[in-house]
Amino acid sequence: MRYAYLGPAGTFTEQALLQRPEASAPDAERVPHGSVDSALAALRAGEVDAAVVPIENSVEGGVSATLDALATGDPLVVVGEMLVPITFVLAAPAGVTLADVRAVGTHSHAWAQVRGWMSTRLPEAAYVPTLSTAAAAAGLGTAVEEQTPYDAAVCAPVAATVHGLELLASDIGDNRAAVTRFVLVSRPGGGPAPTGADKSTMVLYQHEDHPGGLLGLLEQFAVRGINLTRLESRPTGEGMGRYCFSIDIEGHVDDERVGEALMGLRRVCADVRFLGSYPRADRLAATVAAGTQDTDFQQARSWLRSLRTP
Amino acid sequence: MRYAYLGPAGTFTEQALLQRPEASAPDAERVPHGSVDSALAALRAGEVDAAVVPIENSVEGGVSATLDALATGDPLVVVGEMLVPITFVLAAPAGVTLADVRAVGTHSHAWAQVRGWMSTRLPEAAYVPTLSTAAAAAGLGTAVEEQTPYDAAVCAPVAATVHGLELLASDIGDNRAAVTRFVLVSRPGGGPAPTGADKSTMVLYQHEDHPGGLLGLLEQFAVRGINLTRLESRPTGEGMGRYCFSIDIEGHVDDERVGEALMGLRRVCADVRFLGSYPRADRLAATVAAGTQDTDFQQARSWLRSLRTP
Amino acid sequence: MRYAYLGPAGTFTEQALLQRPEASAPDAERVPHGSVDSALAALRAGEVDAAVVPIENSVEGGVSATLDALATGDPLVVVGEMLVPITFVLAAPAGVTLADVRAVGTHSHAWAQVRGWMSTRLPEAAYVPTLSTAAAAAGLGTAVEEQTPYDAAVCAPVAATVHGLELLASDIGDNRAAVTRFVLVSRPGGGPAPTGADKSTMVLYQHEDHPGGLLGLLEQFAVRGINLTRLESRPTGEGMGRYCFSIDIEGHVDDERVGEALMGLRRVCADVRFLGSYPRADRLAATVAAGTQDTDFQQARSWLRSLRTP
Amino acid sequence: MRYAYLGPAGTFTEQALLQRPEASAPDAERVPHGSVDSALAALRAGEVDAAVVPIENSVEGGVSATLDALATGDPLVVVGEMLVPITFVLAAPAGVTLADVRAVGTHSHAWAQVRGWMSTRLPEAAYVPTLSTAAAAAGLGTAVEEQTPYDAAVCAPVAATVHGLELLASDIGDNRAAVTRFVLVSRPGGGPAPTGADKSTMVLYQHEDHPGGLLGLLEQFAVRGINLTRLESRPTGEGMGRYCFSIDIEGHVDDERVGEALMGLRRVCADVRFLGSYPRADRLAATVAAGTQDTDFQQARSWLRSLRTP
Repeated sequence: MRYAYLGPAGTFTEQALLQRPEASAPDAERVPHGSVDSALAALRAGEVDAAVVPIENSVEGGVSATLDALATGDPLVVVGEMLVPITFVLAAPAGVTLADVRAVGTHSHAWAQVRGWMSTRLPEAAYVPTLSTAAAAAGLGTAVEEQTPYDAAVCAPVAATVHGLELLASDIGDNRAAVTRFVLVSRPGGGPAPTGADKSTMVLYQHEDHPGGLLGLLEQFAVRGINLTRLESRPTGEGMGRYCFSIDIEGHVDDERVGEALMGLRRVCADVRFLGSYPRADRLAATVAAGTQDTDFQQARSWLRSLRTP
Repeated sequence: MRYAYLGPAGTFTEQALLQRPEASAPDAERVPHGSVDSALAALRAGEVDAAVVPIENSVEGGVSATLDALATGDPLVVVGEMLVPITFVLAAPAGVTLADVRAVGTHSHAWAQVRGWMSTRLPEAAYVPTLSTAAAAAGLGTAVEEQTPYDAAVCAPVAATVHGLELLASDIGDNRAAVTRFVLVSRPGGGPAPTGADKSTMVLYQHEDHPGGLLGLLEQFAVRGINLTRLESRPTGEGMGRYCFSIDIEGHVDDERVGEALMGLRRVCADVRFLGSYPRADRLAATVAAGTQDTDFQQARSWLRSLRTP
Repeated sequence: MRYAYLGPAGTFTEQALLQRPEASAPDAERVPHGSVDSALAALRAGEVDAAVVPIENSVEGGVSATLDALATGDPLVVVGEMLVPITFVLAAPAGVTLADVRAVGTHSHAWAQVRGWMSTRLPEAAYVPTLSTAAAAAGLGTAVEEQTPYDAAVCAPVAATVHGLELLASDIGDNRAAVTRFVLVSRPGGGPAPTGADKSTMVLYQHEDHPGGLLGLLEQFAVRGINLTRLESRPTGEGMGRYCFSIDIEGHVDDERVGEALMGLRRVCADVRFLGSYPRADRLAATVAAGTQDTDFQQARSWLRSLRTP
Repeated sequence: MRYAYLGPAGTFTEQALLQRPEASAPDAERVPHGSVDSALAALRAGEVDAAVVPIENSVEGGVSATLDALATGDPLVVVGEMLVPITFVLAAPAGVTLADVRAVGTHSHAWAQVRGWMSTRLPEAAYVPTLSTAAAAAGLGTAVEEQTPYDAAVCAPVAATVHGLELLASDIGDNRAAVTRFVLVSRPGGGPAPTGADKSTMVLYQHEDHPGGLLGLLEQFAVRGINLTRLESRPTGEGMGRYCFSIDIEGHVDDERVGEALMGLRRVCADVRFLGSYPRADRLAATVAAGTQDTDFQQARSWLRSLRTP
């Protein structure tokens, strides 16, 4: 089995991948990619069997590159999710002290999460964007000959270790509870069976072009007693104010209530892109409203059959 | 075939029955009953094959006796509906003039519909309730020996003719457009097939005991694009403020959208009593909202199947 | 003070009136009327100061005559409600035994509530409709010279006493918990102040002519957290399927949430006929949803003012 | 008047600012800032009178930095919006040809919008993130002595001109209709008056912690006939799955329907942060549903007053 992930080695994404026992098996191969697009393209091309990418951060919100890459192109499905607590360190080559730091390199999302610490401790430091937090650390590593335009990197602790950097400060995130959610993605076919603690992900495209129609979509869930756990609007690219909705719900496509809601959405939406059902990382069982258990649906179906052919 | 109806001969109900070609066939027998309960009891007991009873009047509203008799007891289903324009006459034995009339006999519903005319033309006349409008006419007929406590009857034109009365005034209803809707009822089994212009009737019992829960029931229809054509609340008899809802909708139980709505109601209601699907008397085709045609449901079901077993 | 009521003396309506202390005051006059229409007409004409009429029965449902009389004509408002347990007796002149009874007189609503007892104990007895239960008793009283077409009356215990009848059977109602709700009605002006345990009554006329629009009306209540305690559809008389809705809600017109809901209904309805706010007979305090107390509305209004003129 | 904007000179944001006639007045000063945070901090500190920042792109979606900066900190309000068509060029110092380009510098949002062109025409080129598109161009300008790690920049045409670069390719955006929406922000007090073609912006925080509660919030708009034109969920930072909603609606805070909806939201939300009402850039008049004009509200209020004090 080959796994693509948003690399290089040392990213939070690699940590997410390593949470999967199957990815640590002796015969498992982990292939770093420079971007979400690249990792998912490798999956679509059949070069790898699965890919791990970030989808949502508790501080920064949805990861647009992932949401958009899943919403378009050849179908892919989410088959698992992993949560990784996000801890940032400020790291630099040996000999550099905090007082020496005039510029800091990191990914823009990470920079957004350490702004508070930076404005207090390094208010004069310039910000230099990099492709990833691990790339920022790599740029300062001993293997690099050319000079980088920054003196220290904001990155994960593991990235500092990998690249032989020393820690100038630890746990510098403004929000200590920050968590990023990653998804394990594969090509369609044979997703995980229901566990009773599942989520499903989908993208809904409306016929109407303004978000007012969202109310009608949410009612398709509400009338079947289904809770949403994430809702992101994303532009469709067709013009200002044209949005689709990326949604996570509680429940599995094999659950009766989820199936009926999906059919209802399919009937009223311009398009529904189903992106998979998978066990929740937190193992929280779904709260199932009265009258929406599978047995309720089955009994109702038997009853309807008896009405139609008495 | 034997047909029970709310008699005696000469009632508007008999007129409704005679709208059915099958009830005028040579071998058809029409059996008058003194009450809705009696007619439906004869049907339940197998003494007749069908029954015609009034269910709704455009001026007076729902006919409680019929609504309640259908909602309880052994199951019966509506298999047809008939509309009868309601025209009232004031009739009396030969020789009686308008000036002679001191008391008027009729059914309380009819009295309610001629109050305006009476208050203008016969403001001093007393009202004497009778079991039906036809019974009021019969009480003045030549066949009656004992004295009746009224001088004239408010009844259908045909009842005046049947009982040999003369007309003191015609078309005396306050609402010239008054119409009564009658239903043809049979025992369950083999109801009429969908025609594209159908209605279905049902009674919904809530778990919750206040009408606030009605909103949730109406949403089960709305989310499937189904229009209601009648809604009556009726007490369940379990105490003040405990109601069930007697409802007519556009569509047939064999329509996909109606089937799914019925299943949804069955899941969230304490009970759903289905009372049949039948062609509309006015032949108006159902307005079917976008995404709620049978083909939309079938395509959605195929799509869901492909998601579940890719 | 003069009080009209649905008479004659001995009706359940008189019992309801006597629950009001002010109606038993030495200078209070109680004026029986032969019909709901007549009692309310006397009130509209200024002949009496208030009127008591039945509005809802826990077994038989809404009282159409009252609902319709309040919904049309010069404005009247409900200023109080009274609950009366309904107990029926079978009464006859001295000397008549149960075996002698071949015909029973009573009001059609009462007859509907004793059908079970009658079918068991007097299955052969004919039914003779009368204008009221008290009128049935009166017809058998010693004061009556002419012969009545029935041998026994179904009426309230007090009516049997008033008219000198003996009891053949007591408590013969099929539903022992039957209760009728009566309203005290007056001309507009100076209704009762809020008590925290109030109801309000209104009639809503839709622009749209089918009950599907009901969902939109109920949402006007739901979005302000208001519970309904009664909903009746009544034909407007404009044709089959044209209904208005007679509604009771929890709360008082002076409550902020009720006021805003009424304004919302006024904006979206063809007409709203407000029929008064009054203390609940059962003294149950309204359940007020989070965010819908008067103080919530007042704080929101202050906040809005600060947004508009910062 | 001093205006902060997301600089440096040559950004699309500067183009948006220059759409405002008042910003081109002789005494107007335009102050570039390196980040959205910095521009808004200068406004909050009173160093400038207004600020222009991007809020939404038709391809990339909401601008998180702006949404988050407006949602927290001292109150600011939007007083205007501007739409700028987004056109990208590939620019390089004189002498560089397309074949020479091995690395391309630009802002990550711009990179996302030219991915298609790049994968076709420069599939081997590396991506180097920069702080802005204008900064990418500036890095290649003649004024820069140190070597930049890229050979060409993706930027606005004006930025290429400003920094003396030559165009290797024009109009390279994957979506030719791409538009970015900018807002003019000021400190609270005296926002623009209603024009009949207005928008209002706000952030809603729920008591409940899952997006299911969104349905209830949308109903507060729907019941007053208000359309949404944008809805973004943003994490509150309190943990995975905790979101607030950044919303634009049609209408002005001084409109009655908007005022009542805002009060309703204030009552049911944990917090409502109002971010201003302002004329729409496209001058499209609001569609006002039946019964939701200001006059409808005023008449309803008068009517309610007459009910309360008849």
